[in-house]
Amino acid sequence: MSTTVEPAAVASGDAVRDAVHEVAGRAKQAARALAVAPRQAKDAALTALADALVANAEQIIAANQEDLERGERTGLAPNLADRLRLDHPRIAAIAQAVRDIVRLPDPVGEVVRGSTLPNGLQLRQVRVPMGVIGMVYEARPNVTIDAAALALKSGNAAVLRGGSAAESTNTVLVGLIRAALESAGLPADAVATIDPWGREGVQHLMRARGLVDLLVPRGGAGLIRTVVENSTVPVIETGTGNCHVYVDASADPQMALEVTLNAKMRRTSVCNAAETLLVHSSLADSFLPTVLTALKEAGVRLHADERALAAARALGIEAEPATEDDWFTEYLAAEIAVGVVDDLDQAIGHIRTYSSGHTEAILTSDLRAANRFTAEIDSAVVAVNASTAFTDGAEFGLGAEVGISTQKLHARGPMGLAELTSTKWIVTGNGQTRP
Amino acid sequence: MSTTVEPAAVASGDAVRDAVHEVAGRAKQAARALAVAPRQAKDAALTALADALVANAEQIIAANQEDLERGERTGLAPNLADRLRLDHPRIAAIAQAVRDIVRLPDPVGEVVRGSTLPNGLQLRQVRVPMGVIGMVYEARPNVTIDAAALALKSGNAAVLRGGSAAESTNTVLVGLIRAALESAGLPADAVATIDPWGREGVQHLMRARGLVDLLVPRGGAGLIRTVVENSTVPVIETGTGNCHVYVDASADPQMALEVTLNAKMRRTSVCNAAETLLVHSSLADSFLPTVLTALKEAGVRLHADERALAAARALGIEAEPATEDDWFTEYLAAEIAVGVVDDLDQAIGHIRTYSSGHTEAILTSDLRAANRFTAEIDSAVVAVNASTAFTDGAEFGLGAEVGISTQKLHARGPMGLAELTSTKWIVTGNGQTRP
Repeated sequence: MSTTVEPAAVASGDAVRDAVHEVAGRAKQAARALAVAPRQAKDAALTALADALVANAEQIIAANQEDLERGERTGLAPNLADRLRLDHPRIAAIAQAVRDIVRLPDPVGEVVRGSTLPNGLQLRQVRVPMGVIGMVYEARPNVTIDAAALALKSGNAAVLRGGSAAESTNTVLVGLIRAALESAGLPADAVATIDPWGREGVQHLMRARGLVDLLVPRGGAGLIRTVVENSTVPVIETGTGNCHVYVDASADPQMALEVTLNAKMRRTSVCNAAETLLVHSSLADSFLPTVLTALKEAGVRLHADERALAAARALGIEAEPATEDDWFTEYLAAEIAVGVVDDLDQAIGHIRTYSSGHTEAILTSDLRAANRFTAEIDSAVVAVNASTAFTDGAEFGLGAEVGISTQKLHARGPMGLAELTSTKWIVTGNGQTRP
Repeated sequence: MSTTVEPAAVASGDAVRDAVHEVAGRAKQAARALAVAPRQAKDAALTALADALVANAEQIIAANQEDLERGERTGLAPNLADRLRLDHPRIAAIAQAVRDIVRLPDPVGEVVRGSTLPNGLQLRQVRVPMGVIGMVYEARPNVTIDAAALALKSGNAAVLRGGSAAESTNTVLVGLIRAALESAGLPADAVATIDPWGREGVQHLMRARGLVDLLVPRGGAGLIRTVVENSTVPVIETGTGNCHVYVDASADPQMALEVTLNAKMRRTSVCNAAETLLVHSSLADSFLPTVLTALKEAGVRLHADERALAAARALGIEAEPATEDDWFTEYLAAEIAVGVVDDLDQAIGHIRTYSSGHTEAILTSDLRAANRFTAEIDSAVVAVNASTAFTDGAEFGLGAEVGISTQKLHARGPMGLAELTSTKWIVTGNGQTRP
């Protein structure tokens, strides 16, 4: 947290790299054991972890208190402090989330495809763990447990880097995880932290090809961009959600109103919350004033394009002109950009230009509009007459999730346990050679 | 092909970037149309392309002749010249490969998963094209057609960069592809080349985030490493195959001999060829001399560890001591590294250390050894009592392939059409909001 450069920092570059490679190398060794560990052992470790979280709640809270006090001294923003804070109910909820993961089926060993070839070769494509998964996230201690538990259940080792503001808490949590692994006969090195090497350590983790099989950044757009642009190991981008709701001319106005309010206001701080509302111009005198009034009453700050601004002002509702930046912005707050479009093409064009590719919803009763929207919108989730808030692993029936992938490679949308695996082809023969 | 730096090259950096972005941007626009194009239109374009290849064979051969003559002047290696050369039979084979792709099912629109949630929401996970696929490969004109045809069939636009030694040939081929697209009512910009901007162009393609959805390098280890280390767009590594055959103590010796010879000698220049043979020490006086003799008779150059060297010398067979480099080497020639191991653990350890993660085979009649080998070897394909030569999209029944992925993310093993797609979740409701 120091704002001055520590004197040894530059000279120690190689030492930091070696230390991070050492941690990742041990994780790679441990991953070998974890890859072939039966579900029983993995579930035993997870159950031991859930028990340990509850049993050691006082110790966790004491470490968390250190982090919070340091945060107070260094001016940690109140909303960040809130995400950092652990208390008994929160610890119980984290432990329960681990028990929920215990109940999920083991993805490892699932046969994805299989066939017998004309020459008698038996072919199976089987799910296998990735190996070592790096997780880089912000100062939210619940993510430490969540990420480690999902990695473990899917047979992967995890190398963690939490935000430095949570370092004391994470030290205790990682200790509990490692003890739980050992109690189940699994190698403690399967979960490790590189927090002691700070930001410099992350730089080396991002470039540890051959040691790290997958890097998953969780957090704000800045963190994700840094990881994507600097990594040479494979990365999955998660969580940036500039989600849109488009209300078509043919929409049921009451349904459109309810879905818009739910998408915006159910929880404003999550990635599946709507950030932009587009309304068909034929609704400028009907639905548009209704939704602007309702949003304002719900306490939403409005950024409006020219026509939406005119509608708001006609109602005496305060609104600001939407800037180009607004259309790109993920507010994660009670704020929304509102625009009026002349047709479906304009709506699709706007979304394709500004969306982060997370979730977009159309409200319509026109089948052709619904079909075009779902076909032409290039996002992880496209919803017809439903709230964007449903984009979630548990809601989709996938169980716990690592995050929402907004990229197209490997995983797109909610990432459950299966998305933390790769596959392997197993070919069984009796001496076949290829002509 | 000039060996001096052209004067404008450095100053033109921004111009090259703009030109590559222009090509990729047009491909992105075209990809929108291709993503929703019905199979009929895509197949019509592919059929027109196959016809055009045959009809314009003379023109293709003339352009190819230019490339070959330039190659001769600049000292192109004979094996590279052979891969560059096109004649009537080769053009007919390329056209036939396109017709084979026509017959493959369209991966786009396949419903991968689906369910109805308790609240009535209907959920479908559907295959969709990636968007724009960049292909970077060496001077093999058949890859130009192959890559473009696979991209097109899977609804993707393709931006191609072939080796500069094939530039004249590729110019003609890309022209034929674009004409075929237009003849089927599809945008010509769906397939484009950045060859005019040479290596500098590739640098910009690798960093064209937002314009290129996936980059697939095809070629030697050096090309692939360059792309992986310099790209900020998602990459799939293909084709480096340091494949191993391990002959266990319990192997049927005749089967082991046939599989080893097939794996090494069927085609030495392909990525699924065996490059290292590991033999259990209990076979040092039986199978080992037999296989060394057979390999030598087949014209294979031997690189042997201490014990294999002793066996070879006892037989009067010439062999060189295997160096650390040999174990890492993909010879792609009639050469093999031979080692003796004391047990399965040593074999697995060796393979895990030196393999490129492509294909490894065990010859054994011991079920436990087979199970441990398939579980603990971390490669795309693991074969029991079968040749490594079967690792191939067509052999696996996947149809034509883009290459063999040796990475764990997204695709592993033979990459067919499905591996050139992403998925999208489509959620259909009647006004559902999330509590």
